[in-house]
Amino acid sequence: MSRLLSRLLDGLPPEAVLTEPDVTASYAHDMASFCPAGAPAAVVLPRDVEQVRHVMRVATELRVPVVPQGARTGLSGAANASDGCVVLSLVRMDRILDIDPVNRIAVVEPGVINADLSKAVAAQGLAYPPDPSSWEQCTIGGNIGTGSGGLCCVKYGVTAEYVLGLEVVLADGRLLTTGRRTAKGVAGYDLTRLFVGSEGTLGVVVCAVLALRPAPPRQLVLAAEFGSATAAGQAVARIMAEGHAPSLLELMDATTVAAVNRLTRMGLPESTQALLLAGFDTPDPAADLAAVGELCRAAGATEVVPADDEAESEMLLAGRRASLSALEAVRGTTMIDDVCVPRARLAELLDGVAAIAERHDLTIGVVAHAGDGNTHPTVCFDATDPDEARRARGSFDEIMALGLELGGTITGEHGVGVLKREWLARELGPDGLELQRGIKRLFDPLGILNPGKVF
Amino acid sequence: MSRLLSRLLDGLPPEAVLTEPDVTASYAHDMASFCPAGAPAAVVLPRDVEQVRHVMRVATELRVPVVPQGARTGLSGAANASDGCVVLSLVRMDRILDIDPVNRIAVVEPGVINADLSKAVAAQGLAYPPDPSSWEQCTIGGNIGTGSGGLCCVKYGVTAEYVLGLEVVLADGRLLTTGRRTAKGVAGYDLTRLFVGSEGTLGVVVCAVLALRPAPPRQLVLAAEFGSATAAGQAVARIMAEGHAPSLLELMDATTVAAVNRLTRMGLPESTQALLLAGFDTPDPAADLAAVGELCRAAGATEVVPADDEAESEMLLAGRRASLSALEAVRGTTMIDDVCVPRARLAELLDGVAAIAERHDLTIGVVAHAGDGNTHPTVCFDATDPDEARRARGSFDEIMALGLELGGTITGEHGVGVLKREWLARELGPDGLELQRGIKRLFDPLGILNPGKVF
Repeated sequence: MSRLLSRLLDGLPPEAVLTEPDVTASYAHDMASFCPAGAPAAVVLPRDVEQVRHVMRVATELRVPVVPQGARTGLSGAANASDGCVVLSLVRMDRILDIDPVNRIAVVEPGVINADLSKAVAAQGLAYPPDPSSWEQCTIGGNIGTGSGGLCCVKYGVTAEYVLGLEVVLADGRLLTTGRRTAKGVAGYDLTRLFVGSEGTLGVVVCAVLALRPAPPRQLVLAAEFGSATAAGQAVARIMAEGHAPSLLELMDATTVAAVNRLTRMGLPESTQALLLAGFDTPDPAADLAAVGELCRAAGATEVVPADDEAESEMLLAGRRASLSALEAVRGTTMIDDVCVPRARLAELLDGVAAIAERHDLTIGVVAHAGDGNTHPTVCFDATDPDEARRARGSFDEIMALGLELGGTITGEHGVGVLKREWLARELGPDGLELQRGIKRLFDPLGILNPGKVF
Repeated sequence: MSRLLSRLLDGLPPEAVLTEPDVTASYAHDMASFCPAGAPAAVVLPRDVEQVRHVMRVATELRVPVVPQGARTGLSGAANASDGCVVLSLVRMDRILDIDPVNRIAVVEPGVINADLSKAVAAQGLAYPPDPSSWEQCTIGGNIGTGSGGLCCVKYGVTAEYVLGLEVVLADGRLLTTGRRTAKGVAGYDLTRLFVGSEGTLGVVVCAVLALRPAPPRQLVLAAEFGSATAAGQAVARIMAEGHAPSLLELMDATTVAAVNRLTRMGLPESTQALLLAGFDTPDPAADLAAVGELCRAAGATEVVPADDEAESEMLLAGRRASLSALEAVRGTTMIDDVCVPRARLAELLDGVAAIAERHDLTIGVVAHAGDGNTHPTVCFDATDPDEARRARGSFDEIMALGLELGGTITGEHGVGVLKREWLARELGPDGLELQRGIKRLFDPLGILNPGKVF
């Protein structure tokens, strides 16, 4: 038995430590393409905070890298194993410890699945808004690590805005409590927010205090078809400039609509260049849909279809929900970009992506959280064809360059991981990068926490 | 001429540098009692980023402490001068650079007054929610430094949630850009949030990108009288547990009500032990007031007065707005605490403060952002009476201890400054404090940025 394994077993039950290579290999990577992944020395599945602390103490003692993991639904390779690392999977720490309607907070372990939390709080008339597309699989710990977004963020904000306090196991095994259980608090620097989106590079989140909201009324959805990205972008700009508060404002381009039709035979209108979906969970959603429908027509919508009820609304959203599977079916593999631009520049990004697709002779479908300017240009390619894969990677990078050129960011909600490391430096500049690396060194002087990610 | 002065004047016009002791003394402190303040060597009033960079380069070169300042309305001594420092007052950098309704952002210099920004964005149908009581004097830079709150935060959140990106002059004069102009973004650690609430100890904010919201409908207010803090606390708990979203939910205790009557002859009901004010800026505020009025009665309200229109609403709020002046008039000086507890524990805090007041034979009025559990127990004392001042300081500290005991924080929105330095260590614990100090050293290795504050 290796020294690492024997030291791990000093503080962990045998069933919490996996070393069979076939098994550990299945923990080696998340859902990003093109990201290198190594072979873990072991996968550890702790059930409590003390077990996590033991793992970090051993890792510090033996200088072994540790890769914290949730459900591995990430799209940037941030949870990928490195050779000889300990994969620290938090999925068995999945208890909801408290739901408190008066203080509107939930206290959860990191392995709680987003959908399970959403359902549990809904049963008490509350909502936990962040709703990444993978919400039925992904964990709260992973959401915190990535700083996840989702569809409803255009109205309710992203994960970061719901994390009030954390318990974090530091690189050397110390347990740090950050933040608060109160609605407000400004005592010292905001370490809580520093951990959110840090992709497992600063510590291991073992408990989170999350803010909840009252459950909103049911949502009604409208679909609008446009003859150009410019017209759809105009509609988005008008909807937001006029002060509407949609609970979702999504866009699918013509490529995505066609792919969805091929996969699902839904019969979405293939003449449209951009399909816009607007949802409202206001007290009178029909009135909001009517007003927004008018704005869409004024911006040039060729067709506007408001739903009358929830069932119709879900039908309108079904195509959006099928988008990523549909694009995956096009050439077998996808690489999902995550560029966020000021929403006024959405049409420029869409037109630019179309030009990049043409130049590289590739299919790139765009789905977007249009209200946030957060787009997911999805490059479809055959991973077994090296030339196509090379062109895919090239177009993926060109899209990030375009996003920065338009005043945006390389990542709105998926994180940096392995996939966008070189791009982070371009976005932050040398001074920003230096300070960020300084923070990393402060929290993880030995460099054992998820090394090779983000920077 | 001193070396410092001559080096400052190398990059600043003479009118930007004040050295007359009578004048510089007027910049020596903010509005906190009990906080030591030194004599500045100079006060610098820059007009642009380059001038700020020059000041920081000179300060680094000569190892001179720099104290960044806004309107000096702070309540913790965070803007107090230290002996021989350069006070860096940002009040002349007061331009609103952009208001963008499509992207719902404003770009501002740090010296913009909160009320000026609020009015400017209101003219475009938008709102900048954070509304500290000093909003007609305080600056956005000061709000960012302190992480300010206000009345409407119970619905709309605090300053931190509206700061998307910053330009910051670092201790050595480098200019750092953090964050983004987009609705979302997770590229690297959240340095923006680290600067918010850092009280001038990490860098000098010279530009901010702020999120805006659509202007809400007009607000209607209800007043409810309770015979005990417990009953009022019950009402607050029920209002929040039932999913209401008040745009303000304020509380005044009997001491405060009596003080307001003495100052203003408003004739507020002195039989009440706790006066609760609830506001709604929803589409149908009258309906919300009716529902909340019922909840107040069920919790034991002896009287419930809903306003019929805006004018009546403003009258109901007038007493709340006069509270701090009224409490100041009681004994000449006040010391305003800022304890935030889980809102379910509000009544325990109120009762505890009353007991502390009695034990120390002092008048302590409590006004509270009750919906957030954020209370401002205001210790009234005669500063010329050393024994009374000593008892005031003792009670102030006991209130913070009580707040921590109830699971709260020593500061909901006023910051740590000089006043609560020892208390910060108690709230954070040794590991948290060590990491926070590490961050301070990373950003300010020479310790020239607002030394002696926070830690």
